[in-house]
Amino acid sequence: MIHKTAIISPVAKIGKNVSVGPYSIVYDNTIIGDNTVIDGFCEIGYPTQLANGNPLVIGDNSRIRSHSVFYEGSSFKENLVTGHRVTVRENTHAGLNMQIGTLSDFQGDCIIGDFVRTHSNVHIGKHSKVGDYVWIFPYVVLTNDPHPPSETMLGVTIKEYAVIATMAVLLPGITVNEHALVGAHTLVNRDVPANMVVAGNPGEVICETSSIKIKNKDVSAYPWPSHFHRGYPEYVIDEWKNKFGEVSDD
Amino acid sequence: MIHKTAIISPVAKIGKNVSVGPYSIVYDNTIIGDNTVIDGFCEIGYPTQLANGNPLVIGDNSRIRSHSVFYEGSSFKENLVTGHRVTVRENTHAGLNMQIGTLSDFQGDCIIGDFVRTHSNVHIGKHSKVGDYVWIFPYVVLTNDPHPPSETMLGVTIKEYAVIATMAVLLPGITVNEHALVGAHTLVNRDVPANMVVAGNPGEVICETSSIKIKNKDVSAYPWPSHFHRGYPEYVIDEWKNKFGEVSDD
Amino acid sequence: MIHKTAIISPVAKIGKNVSVGPYSIVYDNTIIGDNTVIDGFCEIGYPTQLANGNPLVIGDNSRIRSHSVFYEGSSFKENLVTGHRVTVRENTHAGLNMQIGTLSDFQGDCIIGDFVRTHSNVHIGKHSKVGDYVWIFPYVVLTNDPHPPSETMLGVTIKEYAVIATMAVLLPGITVNEHALVGAHTLVNRDVPANMVVAGNPGEVICETSSIKIKNKDVSAYPWPSHFHRGYPEYVIDEWKNKFGEVSDD
Repeated sequence: MIHKTAIISPVAKIGKNVSVGPYSIVYDNTIIGDNTVIDGFCEIGYPTQLANGNPLVIGDNSRIRSHSVFYEGSSFKENLVTGHRVTVRENTHAGLNMQIGTLSDFQGDCIIGDFVRTHSNVHIGKHSKVGDYVWIFPYVVLTNDPHPPSETMLGVTIKEYAVIATMAVLLPGITVNEHALVGAHTLVNRDVPANMVVAGNPGEVICETSSIKIKNKDVSAYPWPSHFHRGYPEYVIDEWKNKFGEVSDD
Repeated sequence: MIHKTAIISPVAKIGKNVSVGPYSIVYDNTIIGDNTVIDGFCEIGYPTQLANGNPLVIGDNSRIRSHSVFYEGSSFKENLVTGHRVTVRENTHAGLNMQIGTLSDFQGDCIIGDFVRTHSNVHIGKHSKVGDYVWIFPYVVLTNDPHPPSETMLGVTIKEYAVIATMAVLLPGITVNEHALVGAHTLVNRDVPANMVVAGNPGEVICETSSIKIKNKDVSAYPWPSHFHRGYPEYVIDEWKNKFGEVSDD
Repeated sequence: MIHKTAIISPVAKIGKNVSVGPYSIVYDNTIIGDNTVIDGFCEIGYPTQLANGNPLVIGDNSRIRSHSVFYEGSSFKENLVTGHRVTVRENTHAGLNMQIGTLSDFQGDCIIGDFVRTHSNVHIGKHSKVGDYVWIFPYVVLTNDPHPPSETMLGVTIKEYAVIATMAVLLPGITVNEHALVGAHTLVNRDVPANMVVAGNPGEVICETSSIKIKNKDVSAYPWPSHFHRGYPEYVIDEWKNKFGEVSDD
């Protein structure tokens, strides 16, 4: 299961039934959970002094696709899944079932909840806080410096179930509240209220999320867990049915 | 021509005079045409169940630059050329002479015509349809979900000769018609008429493409095949001369 | 210091105490300065006819992170530092202490001053000119074609100490003058005066940079060298103290 060309540190802690693909490197300060699959051309546990000696921890049953780089000092609970060429720097801690899209770039020092999903090419600036069940779509950037360049770091906060659509930019220190929707190509320059939609440059509140209907149906598309369940475990879907009701999603 | 460090499946079908660079991997379900050059660090025919057993087909005389990943289930006719770190997922079918820029990410299930060119870092969402002779510039995103996240997939359609400039976002289900020009940093939220220019956030029609002159000349820059011919074969340029006339491009 | 799996051309000129990581390739026409560290999976001196036989030159004491590709025909003075998966094409010449962020893509034929820093995923189009001490933040694109596609190339010019914030697009031929600040998500469609802030789509001058205060202080954040010094050498900081005064940056 470990390809003969993979370079594995003898002091890395590797679980049972782990697979490492061709030409990948696993560095010293790495803990990999059971049944995890790492593709080729990856670097796992890339060394940095900024990790203060803390290991990279990859939870059980994870899948890291090719050409990805994970620094030491970060941790992911079970069932991490990534696309290709993902970068995760040090001191970022994520919960269960994280999904990270191809080419995404996590800058480090972030706190990320359970069941968070990013699509391709998402940039998570240092000191971001992302709540459970958040979705982030391609080319979104979470910034952190209010007057660049400086030493002031004001991370972005995104709360539970919020959705950030393609190519939105979130300015430093912004909070996007629960169940909010940031429209595509929006510049978010102030906090977004819960359950509201913002769009434009600069972003303005344009409606409640509940006013957006599922295509060709007379049913609200939000809260989205009422109809979108793909890839979530049964216990989460059951909880959602109680909280949000249920609508079929064709 | 096959580097000694390349890992080539014995069941992959590889044409005559094919070159594969150092540390590249060619998987089982792959057909590579004659005279094709694949750089180092590539993965060709990356396995996925979503391909339903269909192979990756790379046409004759193609050139795939380093660190690129192509999934099984997609196909490219002759003369494909790519930049570095390109990703193409399953079930995308492209015509002749495709050019794909560095870091571009094709999500799969797309139909792409002949002589399409993308510059760097273009994101083609699932279910996109791109016509012949289309140009797409850096950081453009073609989206597909009208109320994310959902199972509704409304791909974008771009018709022949249309040009999408840098960092435009095309919302789900949009059609950009023939010879239209989408300006840089535009959010396209409705169909774009043929031969028109849209710009802004949200995009508005601002003029006809014919009103844009070639720099320092009193000649229209559009339709662009009247003056831009680099890299197209003679039979295409001859057809264009008949259709669009000819102006020199300095 | 040269990993046994690295592929090093016997005619490449490699300085003293150079390190090359696993699976990296150093091509023929390459000059690497003393004490430089190159990570794994890199291609250094990637061949191209467009370089006219000129070598890639990497200055002393540089650090190139993994999966990066540098073409022949470009040059960097001492102390280059890059992130991962950087691409630099031919005929780009940069000064001292350049920093290039992860996933950035320099298209070639550019002139870049001393102490220039780009963050992640910056796209520098052909024929750009970037002055000393410029900062460019994530997902910024410098374009060059006024009526794409064409053979007309009007590069962007960015002058000393200017700052370009996240996801700005600079249209062809634009000049951003000294100490200007381009706000996040701005479309810059005309020249930006020195010491001014532009924002919006399209960008408008909104204030002088001096009116932006450091967070929680009654002190201007610009010119930024009055308070931000991280990573610059003493002789630069001393010069800045004389020119711009000094304020502490917490």
